[in-house]
Amino acid sequence: MQLGLVGLGRMGANMAKRLLRAGHTCVGYARTAATVQKRIDEGSISSGASSLEDLVKQLETPRVVWLMVPAASVDETIEQLLPHLSPDDIVIDGGNSYYRDDIRRAEWLKKHNIHYVDTGTSGGVWGLDRGYCLMIGGDDEAVKRLDPIFSTLAPGVDAAVRTPGREKVGGTAEKGYLHCGPNGAGHFVKMVHNGIEYGVMAAYAEGLNILHHANIGKDQQTIDAETAPLQNPEYYHYDFNLADVSELWRRGSVIGSWLLDLTASALLQNPQLEKFAGRVSDSGEGRWTVAAAIDESVPAPVLSAALFARFSSRGEADFANKVLSAMRYEFGGHLEKES
Amino acid sequence: MQLGLVGLGRMGANMAKRLLRAGHTCVGYARTAATVQKRIDEGSISSGASSLEDLVKQLETPRVVWLMVPAASVDETIEQLLPHLSPDDIVIDGGNSYYRDDIRRAEWLKKHNIHYVDTGTSGGVWGLDRGYCLMIGGDDEAVKRLDPIFSTLAPGVDAAVRTPGREKVGGTAEKGYLHCGPNGAGHFVKMVHNGIEYGVMAAYAEGLNILHHANIGKDQQTIDAETAPLQNPEYYHYDFNLADVSELWRRGSVIGSWLLDLTASALLQNPQLEKFAGRVSDSGEGRWTVAAAIDESVPAPVLSAALFARFSSRGEADFANKVLSAMRYEFGGHLEKES
Amino acid sequence: MQLGLVGLGRMGANMAKRLLRAGHTCVGYARTAATVQKRIDEGSISSGASSLEDLVKQLETPRVVWLMVPAASVDETIEQLLPHLSPDDIVIDGGNSYYRDDIRRAEWLKKHNIHYVDTGTSGGVWGLDRGYCLMIGGDDEAVKRLDPIFSTLAPGVDAAVRTPGREKVGGTAEKGYLHCGPNGAGHFVKMVHNGIEYGVMAAYAEGLNILHHANIGKDQQTIDAETAPLQNPEYYHYDFNLADVSELWRRGSVIGSWLLDLTASALLQNPQLEKFAGRVSDSGEGRWTVAAAIDESVPAPVLSAALFARFSSRGEADFANKVLSAMRYEFGGHLEKES
Amino acid sequence: MQLGLVGLGRMGANMAKRLLRAGHTCVGYARTAATVQKRIDEGSISSGASSLEDLVKQLETPRVVWLMVPAASVDETIEQLLPHLSPDDIVIDGGNSYYRDDIRRAEWLKKHNIHYVDTGTSGGVWGLDRGYCLMIGGDDEAVKRLDPIFSTLAPGVDAAVRTPGREKVGGTAEKGYLHCGPNGAGHFVKMVHNGIEYGVMAAYAEGLNILHHANIGKDQQTIDAETAPLQNPEYYHYDFNLADVSELWRRGSVIGSWLLDLTASALLQNPQLEKFAGRVSDSGEGRWTVAAAIDESVPAPVLSAALFARFSSRGEADFANKVLSAMRYEFGGHLEKES
Repeated sequence: MQLGLVGLGRMGANMAKRLLRAGHTCVGYARTAATVQKRIDEGSISSGASSLEDLVKQLETPRVVWLMVPAASVDETIEQLLPHLSPDDIVIDGGNSYYRDDIRRAEWLKKHNIHYVDTGTSGGVWGLDRGYCLMIGGDDEAVKRLDPIFSTLAPGVDAAVRTPGREKVGGTAEKGYLHCGPNGAGHFVKMVHNGIEYGVMAAYAEGLNILHHANIGKDQQTIDAETAPLQNPEYYHYDFNLADVSELWRRGSVIGSWLLDLTASALLQNPQLEKFAGRVSDSGEGRWTVAAAIDESVPAPVLSAALFARFSSRGEADFANKVLSAMRYEFGGHLEKES
Repeated sequence: MQLGLVGLGRMGANMAKRLLRAGHTCVGYARTAATVQKRIDEGSISSGASSLEDLVKQLETPRVVWLMVPAASVDETIEQLLPHLSPDDIVIDGGNSYYRDDIRRAEWLKKHNIHYVDTGTSGGVWGLDRGYCLMIGGDDEAVKRLDPIFSTLAPGVDAAVRTPGREKVGGTAEKGYLHCGPNGAGHFVKMVHNGIEYGVMAAYAEGLNILHHANIGKDQQTIDAETAPLQNPEYYHYDFNLADVSELWRRGSVIGSWLLDLTASALLQNPQLEKFAGRVSDSGEGRWTVAAAIDESVPAPVLSAALFARFSSRGEADFANKVLSAMRYEFGGHLEKES
Repeated sequence: MQLGLVGLGRMGANMAKRLLRAGHTCVGYARTAATVQKRIDEGSISSGASSLEDLVKQLETPRVVWLMVPAASVDETIEQLLPHLSPDDIVIDGGNSYYRDDIRRAEWLKKHNIHYVDTGTSGGVWGLDRGYCLMIGGDDEAVKRLDPIFSTLAPGVDAAVRTPGREKVGGTAEKGYLHCGPNGAGHFVKMVHNGIEYGVMAAYAEGLNILHHANIGKDQQTIDAETAPLQNPEYYHYDFNLADVSELWRRGSVIGSWLLDLTASALLQNPQLEKFAGRVSDSGEGRWTVAAAIDESVPAPVLSAALFARFSSRGEADFANKVLSAMRYEFGGHLEKES
Repeated sequence: MQLGLVGLGRMGANMAKRLLRAGHTCVGYARTAATVQKRIDEGSISSGASSLEDLVKQLETPRVVWLMVPAASVDETIEQLLPHLSPDDIVIDGGNSYYRDDIRRAEWLKKHNIHYVDTGTSGGVWGLDRGYCLMIGGDDEAVKRLDPIFSTLAPGVDAAVRTPGREKVGGTAEKGYLHCGPNGAGHFVKMVHNGIEYGVMAAYAEGLNILHHANIGKDQQTIDAETAPLQNPEYYHYDFNLADVSELWRRGSVIGSWLLDLTASALLQNPQLEKFAGRVSDSGEGRWTVAAAIDESVPAPVLSAALFARFSSRGEADFANKVLSAMRYEFGGHLEKES
């Protein structure tokens, strides 16, 4: 099947490469001509386009154009594409758009009889070999037409042990792609996926931090009114090897996961993680997940705690902490301790 | 290698069976003679004992006795065993003891020149085939002597893809068992493991709950001063198939895990989970994990939120909620809404 | 000063009464003629209006119209008022609008040269005698013109001990009303006020719940694998009288507050609070506060935990809890315990 | 009434002064003779003692000895006092002891027929004039005998508006002191008091932080894949004067409190709070409160979030944050952003 791909960053290029390997054709476009040439040279794409117009011209109708551009550039890209597209063409947004933007865009393109398909894509830098988990929203016709592409990008059923009973159910979920519902459904599911990701990551991070400090009883204890005494220092004399512990949990334990696999690998290379400062970014989906929970009246204490821990890691609690110190000074004359 | 096993519940019996399959010998004892007989009949154990004394007598010195009894029965069992044991024997606690009890017991047995080894064991009802993840605390000599048993019970290196670079490091962690440190270290690591488990479980549960309520915009909205209005009901019109979504995430996504595998299986069998009431037990380790975090001054907002959600699921927040309703009535005359 | 008041519910009627007591004139309108008559009869308003048009006609220009209607009715009310208003009139929204609606409405009315003033109003059913705390957003001219009304409604400086140094600063903050900034600023501050309110309330509620269960050690402990054992029941033998404890804290302690005053009163009347079910409503501001925190990247773990506890009190965590029970059943064969 | 006071720090000296003002007699002892002399010179105590033995000798039997020493020194002090005390004497611990230590100490002293009374004392540096809120645990006889002292130290009923209905109930709660139960009850109630204090403080701090960042929309937005975009910067253009806002809320609002009074004062003196670094200490009671909640299975999401925010303010989440950054690097090649 033939596909136009707009955006040839690392993730886009890998997706194209995976499609080519399976016999699909992929015309690529990026803002910088050098990027296009590089992707041609490395064999990631079948051919390159010099403009969006050129890209569209190289595609047979009805066309398929897959966007892998930053969420902030999607609207602008569609605006530029639109004059060149024809009825029944499909535009796919494979980036990290907010699902509400999908709903708006689908209505906009529908007026031109063009299909819009939102496809949340998980897999990161590993997707080329591991396959991409695809969460899809859109109308049935368009999604069905794209099946050859989705099934190629997805990991396939063999990527995990089959769930007992799945053989009677069928469907594409166990192949690693799913038509989740109408427009926005793909990015909604991707949004929640990332919200869960934050929570799972934080669970490991907190647990490992507890193990990391399990030797605190060996330290000299500070004795003053500003320091809560450690009641039983003798219970905190453990020097755990976290590279080993995270490796250990990968087999047979209840908490085995791909994120744990990555953690074990990171700790093996860099046991104290000193090459990281601990300023943790968040890219939006975790925020939207908590906002959705609030709209729905669904409690999300774990997902929000994970999100807020990231904010705090970037110093965003500083003023609040100063307020606390100021209150303590006011009622008790407490002075802050030096670090 | 020969082993005495005290406690022949499902988990103990499965462990014995796994040992026998690999050529080890296992003498079993349980409080009820019928249980012992059943385990002999089904081939889980090599032979049965009629009492703890009988069990000890059947073992060659230096002996190995593995306890798989409730945490509350460990002290009593050791007391009964002790008169029959000899110097250099090893007692293993494979249950869910608090690591502080391990430290105390190890000191107690050391006075009799008997080794004590605490072994946190993860694997649940699946361990027979999947292997057990073993987190071990104790002195080097005893742990080394038990290596044949640990390596049989553990999943082995093939149970997961090898972490790049591990081949240069060696050690048993990648086989699924690890000598974590001195006594208590095994159950300390197991404790934190379970604390993480609570957090990971809650992350999935909250995310799935958000997906479950994503059709709330289809409901008739209540309009009164006691109900926060849903600002944009049109954004919550999705009917997600959670059995499919959880299956989807198993392949290629960032949040793939064994717990997700189980969730996908549960939702396939019972999509609305109506056979559960949602009263979630906790068995202690999550509590101890948060208590350790507090002792160490380590923030654990996610792990504690997960723990408290379980308490709330059992109605333990009821009085607090009544206090809130009472305050609202006092300052605003607000009456509670019917459910 | 003369004022038109739309909305004569309990809060609106009390505000009018407080204005009349100070010599202001208040023309009142409500949807139901009977309500208007009742407010005239009880002396809450100076005169009544039969329609919004009639209300406007009874006011001298430039007019002041204060809306105390549900947030959902504000737009509709303004639409009906608008044809009858003249340039330089002022419309005040004293309800619980979302501050973003204020910004929109102010722009809308500005096109007609009409001022819009958003006034977050705290004080509940107690405001008649205690005064109202007024958080005001709008342009300088309008806010200045309304000063006689605001200063009458507000509690005045004598309502609390003066902050040392305030005498040199001046301003209206210490009188209990404040021009917080341009449109939306009033309801933004009110929104955060209510967000804080949720957090403060939850802090008391959780603490009192801990005291309420401080006799748990007297209960027979359940011993099974599904119940975390209480390690030291002898430390939980206290039967606290919470009406007394909350009364006690009102004087001299660090946590004295008006909410505590109300709590002490509620617990005195109804020590077990059995007349409440513990289903706690939330009316929107707490949600918007957390949403603002997320937009600003400001961590709000306490305010969000308080919000989510209310959601949970209404059963909104149920599906998440079922997911947890389902997982536990899958990996460990754990069955739920009966309540 | 006559009292021996051990520990003449600022809080102890103020308590003595308040007692002397009311006609009580107070013999004081401190480790350093100079401190004793200073307190004599400033008129805080009636007379000084050169040793604990001397202190005891100066008191008439049955004696009353009040300890205001660091929690870590209480046992040692009692050991030194004990040989000199007589049956029926009373020892009071007015510091911040863990309530479990009270239970142990009471049993210990009871063997010598000496009464032990634990008295949680709130009031900080303000207690001299404002009075102390006293939370008392011990046997009836001893507590009754100390009533003259407690009623002098406490604020008295006039310190707050009387709760309606209290006049029919009587008791000392509304005077600001309360016999809460047997030994440990006083410090248990004080512990929870401080746990609540943390939650209330955090609620204000988070809310003020949200107001502090309400001008974030004026900043240039960073546009990259590592930064969640602010969707509507136009809604975050407010420059709030927090000294004014906190002053405003002191009158008429639902969230008025003594802590808010102090906050308003602190912000008036130092609007940006730049003299604080935001490293917030915790002195133990908040930890014990959460630990008690866990023991009792009582959810405490707000109190624990407040506690953990303090830990994070001191950098205790750093390793956890590094784990998160390491995971993000592993799965997505994400590099940390510079601050």
